Amino acid sequence: MIIVLRPDATNEQVNHIIDKVTKLGLTPHVSKGTERTIIGVIGPEDILRVTPLEVYPGVERVIPVLAPYRLVSREFQKETSVIKVGKGVEVGGKKIVVMGGPCAIENFSTLTDIAMQVKAAGGTVLRGGAFKPRTSPYSFQGLGVEGLQILKKVGDEYGLATISEVMDTRDVETVASYVDILQIGARNMQNFNLLKEVGLTKRPVMLKRGPSSTVKEMLMSAEYILSGGNFNVILCERGIRTFEDSTRNTLDISAVPVAKQLSHLPIIVDPSHAAGKWGLVAPLSRAAIACGADGLIIEVHSHPEDALSDGAQSLLPENFASLIKELVILARTMGRDI
Amino acid sequence: MIIVLRPDATNEQVNHIIDKVTKLGLTPHVSKGTERTIIGVIGPEDILRVTPLEVYPGVERVIPVLAPYRLVSREFQKETSVIKVGKGVEVGGKKIVVMGGPCAIENFSTLTDIAMQVKAAGGTVLRGGAFKPRTSPYSFQGLGVEGLQILKKVGDEYGLATISEVMDTRDVETVASYVDILQIGARNMQNFNLLKEVGLTKRPVMLKRGPSSTVKEMLMSAEYILSGGNFNVILCERGIRTFEDSTRNTLDISAVPVAKQLSHLPIIVDPSHAAGKWGLVAPLSRAAIACGADGLIIEVHSHPEDALSDGAQSLLPENFASLIKELVILARTMGRDI
Amino acid sequence: MIIVLRPDATNEQVNHIIDKVTKLGLTPHVSKGTERTIIGVIGPEDILRVTPLEVYPGVERVIPVLAPYRLVSREFQKETSVIKVGKGVEVGGKKIVVMGGPCAIENFSTLTDIAMQVKAAGGTVLRGGAFKPRTSPYSFQGLGVEGLQILKKVGDEYGLATISEVMDTRDVETVASYVDILQIGARNMQNFNLLKEVGLTKRPVMLKRGPSSTVKEMLMSAEYILSGGNFNVILCERGIRTFEDSTRNTLDISAVPVAKQLSHLPIIVDPSHAAGKWGLVAPLSRAAIACGADGLIIEVHSHPEDALSDGAQSLLPENFASLIKELVILARTMGRDI
Amino acid sequence: MIIVLRPDATNEQVNHIIDKVTKLGLTPHVSKGTERTIIGVIGPEDILRVTPLEVYPGVERVIPVLAPYRLVSREFQKETSVIKVGKGVEVGGKKIVVMGGPCAIENFSTLTDIAMQVKAAGGTVLRGGAFKPRTSPYSFQGLGVEGLQILKKVGDEYGLATISEVMDTRDVETVASYVDILQIGARNMQNFNLLKEVGLTKRPVMLKRGPSSTVKEMLMSAEYILSGGNFNVILCERGIRTFEDSTRNTLDISAVPVAKQLSHLPIIVDPSHAAGKWGLVAPLSRAAIACGADGLIIEVHSHPEDALSDGAQSLLPENFASLIKELVILARTMGRDI
Repeated sequence: MIIVLRPDATNEQVNHIIDKVTKLGLTPHVSKGTERTIIGVIGPEDILRVTPLEVYPGVERVIPVLAPYRLVSREFQKETSVIKVGKGVEVGGKKIVVMGGPCAIENFSTLTDIAMQVKAAGGTVLRGGAFKPRTSPYSFQGLGVEGLQILKKVGDEYGLATISEVMDTRDVETVASYVDILQIGARNMQNFNLLKEVGLTKRPVMLKRGPSSTVKEMLMSAEYILSGGNFNVILCERGIRTFEDSTRNTLDISAVPVAKQLSHLPIIVDPSHAAGKWGLVAPLSRAAIACGADGLIIEVHSHPEDALSDGAQSLLPENFASLIKELVILARTMGRDI
Repeated sequence: MIIVLRPDATNEQVNHIIDKVTKLGLTPHVSKGTERTIIGVIGPEDILRVTPLEVYPGVERVIPVLAPYRLVSREFQKETSVIKVGKGVEVGGKKIVVMGGPCAIENFSTLTDIAMQVKAAGGTVLRGGAFKPRTSPYSFQGLGVEGLQILKKVGDEYGLATISEVMDTRDVETVASYVDILQIGARNMQNFNLLKEVGLTKRPVMLKRGPSSTVKEMLMSAEYILSGGNFNVILCERGIRTFEDSTRNTLDISAVPVAKQLSHLPIIVDPSHAAGKWGLVAPLSRAAIACGADGLIIEVHSHPEDALSDGAQSLLPENFASLIKELVILARTMGRDI
Repeated sequence: MIIVLRPDATNEQVNHIIDKVTKLGLTPHVSKGTERTIIGVIGPEDILRVTPLEVYPGVERVIPVLAPYRLVSREFQKETSVIKVGKGVEVGGKKIVVMGGPCAIENFSTLTDIAMQVKAAGGTVLRGGAFKPRTSPYSFQGLGVEGLQILKKVGDEYGLATISEVMDTRDVETVASYVDILQIGARNMQNFNLLKEVGLTKRPVMLKRGPSSTVKEMLMSAEYILSGGNFNVILCERGIRTFEDSTRNTLDISAVPVAKQLSHLPIIVDPSHAAGKWGLVAPLSRAAIACGADGLIIEVHSHPEDALSDGAQSLLPENFASLIKELVILARTMGRDI
Repeated sequence: MIIVLRPDATNEQVNHIIDKVTKLGLTPHVSKGTERTIIGVIGPEDILRVTPLEVYPGVERVIPVLAPYRLVSREFQKETSVIKVGKGVEVGGKKIVVMGGPCAIENFSTLTDIAMQVKAAGGTVLRGGAFKPRTSPYSFQGLGVEGLQILKKVGDEYGLATISEVMDTRDVETVASYVDILQIGARNMQNFNLLKEVGLTKRPVMLKRGPSSTVKEMLMSAEYILSGGNFNVILCERGIRTFEDSTRNTLDISAVPVAKQLSHLPIIVDPSHAAGKWGLVAPLSRAAIACGADGLIIEVHSHPEDALSDGAQSLLPENFASLIKELVILARTMGRDI
């Protein structure tokens, strides 16, 4: 932590701050420059982070030096985490994982139809929402537990691992009893009670980046889950809100190498929500793999015209299949498999 | 709803869309221009909103015409809602409401000290967090139910209505049993399950705008609460995320007149979180009143240096008192009282 | 300047940096913490700013401490600058300046009509564009020099100072020969050659904030003008680009007190461009005055339906007049006049 | 153009608008819905775009239907433009172009050294700034004409085409006489006079996207150049401003396929300015190629520690060479060459 003093800070004010820092068990280093005095503070920053040093008289600015997260950082663990998901699927290893399926689970036969084709194309995880976060209270809100039962049955039948979103602390146990991966949606990235709750399970969690959050904020949210005892976290870049209006969100492709530098957690990409248009899913998927992503989560629907949610961004199964063929070749040039 | 077709759309494609629209019970109006054909759709848009018209062959763009909210709109109710809060406090009437108090409830004596001064200065609602949304799992998370008990006791003693945040669907009933106003925090503006849950109570709700949300998105979230049966909603502008880094957030002062044009709900302003610096609270409070806000919620702490949360943006009680004096005069020039 | 080293930085790397810093004539202060070593650098930061310390082996991050601007800062000059504009108008003193007029100068009679009413209402500066920055090459681009001649004639006739935009380094001399204040438009805030060119004149300059720029970046652009020798700079907050779409831009009202803390230059507000809707001009104007702005620049047109540019945000002269009446009262509560 | 009326619009108001539209030579189509009346306007939108329909009594909203650009659109020209640059280089064809070189031209020997290695690695265009847009007036502003002379000499010697930025309308002719491609920098994307001026030359122009501009705004700026008579425009995505702070800008990789859908102009990517960190240049370059970019412009410097500008984001020549080797393989999987 570095404390920059105002040019007119008095000796009394400097001493008041030094006293405070020392009382907290930390060591202050004072450097007097020609224009500003600076106090460097050595020791664990967490203690200082909760102290409002900015209000101390004479203080101009406080600059943290250390990252506020620990357990998720590369410094804490050098090797990339490989998350074992179930049904033999691992995320973070040499093999790139492809998750596919509809935005919302609609009924047994539609999901079966899609699952069959996801499997045939080479996908290993089946996605499908049972609880849907919708901006309008009048939109379809998902099938709830009935949807989870359908998802489990279909996943088991085709040997696909499953992933579905949990939105409510009260539902965590239930959802965890049906699916292989708990999804935390973008709008819940900073729903701290929900993060704590999934941190208490051992179920793998896929944490989606909030649409206006930084990579570091996503890592802080992951820290909540790890600090609860659950280290099985997969990060997911799904686009951020920008001024660009020709896509639903802006895929921040740099987030992939940035997250890999800062953290040992694997990171996958959701090109469907990022683009909001199925025609952009293929180029963005290729970009994700070329950038080092550990997987993709893609919306697939056999009848997008009739989809109850997000039809506009769903790939037809045949397009999903030909995309994976392309990606297999690309993955090899990156020294990986699909 | 307006459907803009691609320049190369075929007659077959146009007819396919007309069929679909007609089957949904809506009336299509086709206009053939020199460069584009446009289909205007007359009837309730909600039906179309869930249909992914963008994926229909030949469609270039779909433009909604009607607002997606109903109950919160000025068209639904012409007169501004006046929310009765308890302890004789009303929000939305001629009298501008001033809420004051610490970010977090720390203990009984500190809150008593602050409450006494908030009351003396002319504040009528006491704020204080018992459940705190913190970006770090290692920060102080609030006193929980114990904090609510302190808040209730102090509020009763000084005749101040009370407001505190609820973050978890499981806590709604408990928090509602202690406070006069349930606060939905900015990060939970789109926590739809929480919105539904507070919609089932009759307790007034103050809904804070999400840091990257539009006014219309805030109104959609309010719609969730009203559609659950609870019409006692107070909107709160608290600053949005922008590139400006000299303030914690950017107070969107235009949100006040914009919300008042679109909706009958009252709107108040939180200058403390918007600015993040106590030195900016006074000018922003004046701007809010000058713009037509129905109230202010301001952080007040008697010892900001020792505050467990957000000390840097807390006013000292004496500064709070002199600010209110200024605002009383300003309110009169606006034809209102404090 | 503070240099934060990586946790694995070697002694050799630390010494390499210390050498470099010392050779540049600066003094390094090394603090070894438990997790990171930090080097504080004492002396003028400008020298270091151009040195890419981030690429030195072992460096994690470089944090500047001092503001990159000098001449515009409050530290350089304690008293607020009062800019003498001509025709007896001053900006930055006790009197709040109101500038009014059409977006574009259309012809002599329309401008005369508007000027007469601006004057009658209490405005002291006449605005009008002769060179118009338009996003489309097919839109009306302004009358050019003919417009400037009209503006000068009308301004002289009614005793109003004049302001008009200059967009091209080649036009600076010409525009300066016709108007009292040179306007640098928002899109040209970082057109550094243009800034240098107006810095060589003595003509007052109104510098509009770029739609995605921070206050500090605006101050850096002002520094260009002052460093060229022209200290007559008026800042102008005109709204920034955000996700909010119910206004054209988001008026950053906090920019007024922030700029006043950081700089001695006066700052005025343009509510017309910020809102993009005439119905919001009155509340935003009140907010600006309540926040401490030194003036307003407002679009006024006697026939907005026929305006060649920005009709939607122009006030009718009668609304402009009644707004000023309101503002006169408000200004008095702020200890100022109009 | 679609005009949405307010729910309370009178027949008189509707007729007033219909009159106006008809007088402008356009055809109004009125659709009366249950909640809103809508007027579709058939005919060239440009006429209406400059008419402030929003101020007509009874109007709620005006929605443009057609894109405001013409000459740059795919509708205007189906085949992708291939821009002939000189020295045998073409942009937009099967061969992906790699441009490399320092941010700023420093002296003859350094540029020679870099050019030799750019050439050896497979680059075909040499970049180097002679006029530098710097946020601080105290930073190195470039060598000016002397820099252009060095660039020309070195480019000729190594058979490399050259590119350099022009910032001032007065310099266009001079810069065009030395370089093969005129660069319009990101901050000048909406410097309309500069766009007009380069539109009058026949020299190829590389237009960089403004940091807060949309793809459509970039196309509007390109329209300025084409409408002046110069069709040799290359678009360049170089990252946009977002809240993410671990990169200098956020590379909007989706801009590549989006621009290719909307326009026939080729588009290249600048990973160096997007990332601001040399360690991210390789993954972002791969992502760009995988997404369909027609080329890359990369900062290369043999001694980044001593670079006078942007050293932190410059690749060492050996890293540039090994990156190109990787990209050659990737390009083949995309059916292209380097």
